[in-house]
Amino acid sequence: MSNPTAQITARKFEQDSPAGAGVGAPSARTIVKRGPTRAVYERETINAILDEAIICHVGFVYQDSPRVIPCVFARSGDVLYLHGSTANRMLRSIAAGEVCITVTLVDGLVLARSAFHHSVNYRSVVIYGRGEAVTDPVEKDEALRLTLEHAIPGRWGDVRPPNRKETLRTLVVRVPLDEASAKIRVGDPVDEDEDHALECWAGVIPLHCAPQPPVDDGLLRAGIAAPDYALAYRRPVQRD
Amino acid sequence: MSNPTAQITARKFEQDSPAGAGVGAPSARTIVKRGPTRAVYERETINAILDEAIICHVGFVYQDSPRVIPCVFARSGDVLYLHGSTANRMLRSIAAGEVCITVTLVDGLVLARSAFHHSVNYRSVVIYGRGEAVTDPVEKDEALRLTLEHAIPGRWGDVRPPNRKETLRTLVVRVPLDEASAKIRVGDPVDEDEDHALECWAGVIPLHCAPQPPVDDGLLRAGIAAPDYALAYRRPVQRD
Repeated sequence: MSNPTAQITARKFEQDSPAGAGVGAPSARTIVKRGPTRAVYERETINAILDEAIICHVGFVYQDSPRVIPCVFARSGDVLYLHGSTANRMLRSIAAGEVCITVTLVDGLVLARSAFHHSVNYRSVVIYGRGEAVTDPVEKDEALRLTLEHAIPGRWGDVRPPNRKETLRTLVVRVPLDEASAKIRVGDPVDEDEDHALECWAGVIPLHCAPQPPVDDGLLRAGIAAPDYALAYRRPVQRD
Repeated sequence: MSNPTAQITARKFEQDSPAGAGVGAPSARTIVKRGPTRAVYERETINAILDEAIICHVGFVYQDSPRVIPCVFARSGDVLYLHGSTANRMLRSIAAGEVCITVTLVDGLVLARSAFHHSVNYRSVVIYGRGEAVTDPVEKDEALRLTLEHAIPGRWGDVRPPNRKETLRTLVVRVPLDEASAKIRVGDPVDEDEDHALECWAGVIPLHCAPQPPVDDGLLRAGIAAPDYALAYRRPVQRD
């Protein structure tokens, strides 16, 4: 608890040497110093956040400057996949260098009695690592399948898979999940004792990602109905 | 249109020297090379995206490594404000260095007939600049007010404002919006001509940020009702 409205800024990185600690044990870089009671290193929690999110934000250094690009992704076990055009500078940059991938789910706004203690309920994951281009064609195909299934589970079987030309134009980059941490804030505002006497409402406004009914493509042929996975789309995905 | 599911990766940065071009004219760094028909440099469009978003992702370089942290923010005219604890390394870093701030609104999933042409409808803004600590106490107070009002319009008048101790513990950083660009994808999938013959549904699953009814703080005093700005909370904010 430290500042108005932005508990979400609280992740810190006091130390720097990327220790070899895996998920489950924080590295010097992933150890959360600000609001450490919010830090989570368990793989199950990290995976659940990654699997619910639709996009990530990819940070990299390009000629000494920071860059942050939104991107779809997929997770497979201990690996995260990004992909794009072979001409994509971000991918070419992280395929040979360091990357920081951040996934954030905003769950609610936390309204305290003081401006200072306003906050956000959220779940986030930060991954540090080095990207690596996927050259094995089987892994590459699977990464593209997983990416589509990550965004829209059930979709892959209905569509034309990538042909050779499309695959050749696509660069897939693998990032290991060895160095990842989650940070989570849940629940009520935490006010100063004396502020509870104020005539001020306090509580949480929950925020959800709400899918709407699917909209047919303008060129859709007559007689083709939207599939169940589009009609009943939701995050997080319901898994049997 | 280039690759499966990830048109959103398409922002590119072929050139590097940060030219002095303001909003309305792309700089060498903000000019969008991939999918350039999606690029927007008009200030009105950029502002609307910034004003709708609740959080941004702040990228910076710390000891040669990229870092990306989610953060609340506020916009005031040509300036964006970030804030947090005076102990916050991100803020201390960007108060004296380069930053890339990215805001992304995901509007829908675009389901094409081929895996390759799946995409995301989105609106994003990328800002490049150098942060600067706000030392003027009037500007600092106003930045904190604007940040709360950005997240929850109408809230500031109901809460206890920051006291001297809280303000002293808070660092506010100003980032100019001189070098910003937006990128937007809207509408239907764009399939290969021959794929229109497939027996495959195509279209868009729209996604919205859906606020839920406010939840009272467990310590709320009896007889205090949730205010209208919480009951009717929505993004984008309705402005008269």
